[in-house]
This record gives sequence, structure tokens and C-alpha cells, in this order.
Amino acid sequence: MTHQPLRLHYAPDNASLCIRLACELLDIPYQTVLVDRASRAQDSAAYRALNPAGLIPVLETDDGPVFETAAILIWLANRYPGQLMPAPATTGEAAALSWLLWLANTLHPTLRMTFYPAQYMPDAPDDFRAAMQRRLSSHLHLLDRHATTLHPVHHCYLAPMLRWTSLYGDNAGWFTLTDYPRLHDLARQCEVSAHARRAAQAEGLGDTPFSAPRLANPPEGSAT
Amino acid sequence: MTHQPLRLHYAPDNASLCIRLACELLDIPYQTVLVDRASRAQDSAAYRALNPAGLIPVLETDDGPVFETAAILIWLANRYPGQLMPAPATTGEAAALSWLLWLANTLHPTLRMTFYPAQYMPDAPDDFRAAMQRRLSSHLHLLDRHATTLHPVHHCYLAPMLRWTSLYGDNAGWFTLTDYPRLHDLARQCEVSAHARRAAQAEGLGDTPFSAPRLANPPEGSAT
Repeated sequence: MTHQPLRLHYAPDNASLCIRLACELLDIPYQTVLVDRASRAQDSAAYRALNPAGLIPVLETDDGPVFETAAILIWLANRYPGQLMPAPATTGEAAALSWLLWLANTLHPTLRMTFYPAQYMPDAPDDFRAAMQRRLSSHLHLLDRHATTLHPVHHCYLAPMLRWTSLYGDNAGWFTLTDYPRLHDLARQCEVSAHARRAAQAEGLGDTPFSAPRLANPPEGSAT
Repeated sequence: MTHQPLRLHYAPDNASLCIRLACELLDIPYQTVLVDRASRAQDSAAYRALNPAGLIPVLETDDGPVFETAAILIWLANRYPGQLMPAPATTGEAAALSWLLWLANTLHPTLRMTFYPAQYMPDAPDDFRAAMQRRLSSHLHLLDRHATTLHPVHHCYLAPMLRWTSLYGDNAGWFTLTDYPRLHDLARQCEVSAHARRAAQAEGLGDTPFSAPRLANPPEGSAT
């Protein structure tokens, strides 16, 4: 299989940020293609041909498009084995896959529901958001107790989610990252690394994008 | 790494069924350990030591416990490469991982919310269930259009989810599998295979467990 340049379909401060962090960490060549959220470009026929679910990100590869954040992370991990997480069928893979899938199917969906409660409970979005914030807090306390078992692939996924928890979803006052001391440490360690600084610069996220985030000021496109 | 017997912590007709199907398809030795849902054994300290999230299933391996259904499926796929899905870093992996993660973080969470709406919206569980059923129907129509791209790993995950959609969550009248013709075909093809018949027999699921399911009558334990 030939290696053509990877093409990341992204919007600033969207889930594509997790993939950008991984590509920067791996130090591999990749191109970015802005998805214009303002015109709902992710709903276009061209974008749906890459990702039928119409969500950001997609990574175009020599094996075709990959969609779903965790799927892209696993795909990258398998192409560059041992750098993001233990290689397939090696020691430590069991725990690494478990927590990666937990991030993907428990933490991320709950977080998404705090951002878009009207998509789930149109008649009572505020009540639903509050319930999901309580659920999210419970998830984060659980993860805080296991944070030291995490690998770079988890950091790439989790650090942006901690950022978004602080910034989005009418979060004023309900969330304080320092209530989760190991996750706070993880956010700090991630944001001072060279690869994360390159990613933050590319999307206008400032100097403390994970531990003390401010709204993005991206050079192109918009976060919402 | 030595290969000790796999131990699947299961309850009849729970998500562990997906793993049983995969183990039977691979035709590998595995032991089962019943999790007594009636006494909430999944909340015990011993079980939480295997899976901190307290959910069924867990697969104990020579690399420690694996939890989250899709994580276990990927772990098995990597140990027995090429049988459940394309092997790591080979052609077809991109699409296979994408749909597997979509099953895990989109279809499965939505289905779960139709079963336990009071966990998410305690003040209006019926309204929430109805909203999630509409969302689930939309997901299944999307998947129906892509069903022919799926691999055995997806079949192992999806066929039980189609069963549960028919059986659980106060579903009377709202769901008819034949409205999704490719998914109905997939359910039929799966349930007549030898590996699925062995799994269905082990958990008391009858002769048409996926296309025309009836409540489980398991030899041990209970489904709920």
C-alpha cells in the first residue's frame, strides 16, 4: 500500500483537533481541508460521501476515508505502531483499547449531549443539559482515578474534551478542572509539549488551551 | 505472551452476547463467568476491579481485563488477525474501524438510552425514550444504506443490537426490522450460521434470535 499524504477535514476546535494532535505527535505529513461549518458543509453530498454520518473529522487515506475520532486514532496507531498506544496484540493493549473505547462511547457522547441538548430533548433542553452535566462529572471523577494508566492516544482525545467541557455548553460555574487533579495535571503536561503547541497555534487556541482555555481565534474558519 | 484461556464475564442476552458470537465465530476456547444481575454483582468491588465502569461484559485475558464491547472485539480481531475484520494496517481497515466505532459510540448509546431513559431524564423518561427511538430509527436507516460494507465484527455487534431493539425498551409497535431490508437480511444470515446457533443455544435465545426474537429463556442467570 502506497502512502499518499493524509488529508484531515477539520474545523477549528472541533473533534478534528484530536487528530491534529496525534498527527503532530507522530510528526507525519498531513494536509488540512477546512470544513465550513457556517454553510453546513458537513451536510453536503461531497462530505457525506466521505462520512455518511456528516460529522467532523474525516481523515482521507490511501485506504479511503476514516471517520469517527477514535477510529481515526486507532487507524493512525496501527500505521505507526507503538507510538500512540501499545501495538496490536502486544502487552498493554487490553487496557489501552478499553479506555479509548470508553472515551469514545461514554465520555464523548455525554459531552456532546451537554452541547446540543435540544437535539436530544427539544422540549426541555435545560433540564437535560443539567442532567448530562451531572453524568459528565461522574464520568470525569471515574477517569481521574485511572488517569495514570492512559497513553498518548488518550491524551490526544481527552485534552480537547477537557477544553470543550470548560468552554462550551453553557458551562458557567458548573465545571472546574482542578476538581479533577490528575486530569488537570494531564491537561498541563499536554499543552506544554511541542506537538500540542503546534496544534494550538494552527487553530488559534492560545497558550493554555487545555488547563485554562479561552475561545478559539482561528486563522481560518469558525469553531461553531 | 502466553495464551491462557479467555474468561468472559457475561449475563444472558447482555452485551456479552456480542463477544460470545465473536469467540464462537473464531472457534477459540473461552470460559464464561455468570454476572448475577439480580444481586447487582457488576457493582461489586471485585467486578469493578476488572471494569471500573461496572458494565457487562469484561473479557479476562493474559494481558489483563478488556472492557467495552467494541474494545473487546478489536482486541480479539488483533489476536486473530483477518478473521473478524481486515488486519491492522491492511486494506479495508479504514472503513471497518469507522463503522465499528460508529456502532459503539452512536448506535449503542442511543439504544441504551431507549432502555434506561430514567437514568438520563428522570423527570420525563417517556418523552426522552420517544425522542431516542426516533433518533435510533434514523441511525438504522443510515446503516441500512451501508450494510453491505460490514464485516463479521460488525455482524457480531449489530445482530444483538437489532434483537434488543425489537425486545426491550417498551418498543411495542414502534420498531419493525423489515423496514430496514438489508439489516433484516443480515440478521437472518447471522442467525442461521453455526456459530450463532451455538451462542443462541448457550443463552436460551431460540431459533430466530435476531430476525424474530423472543425473550431469553437462559439455562442460568437472567437477562435483566
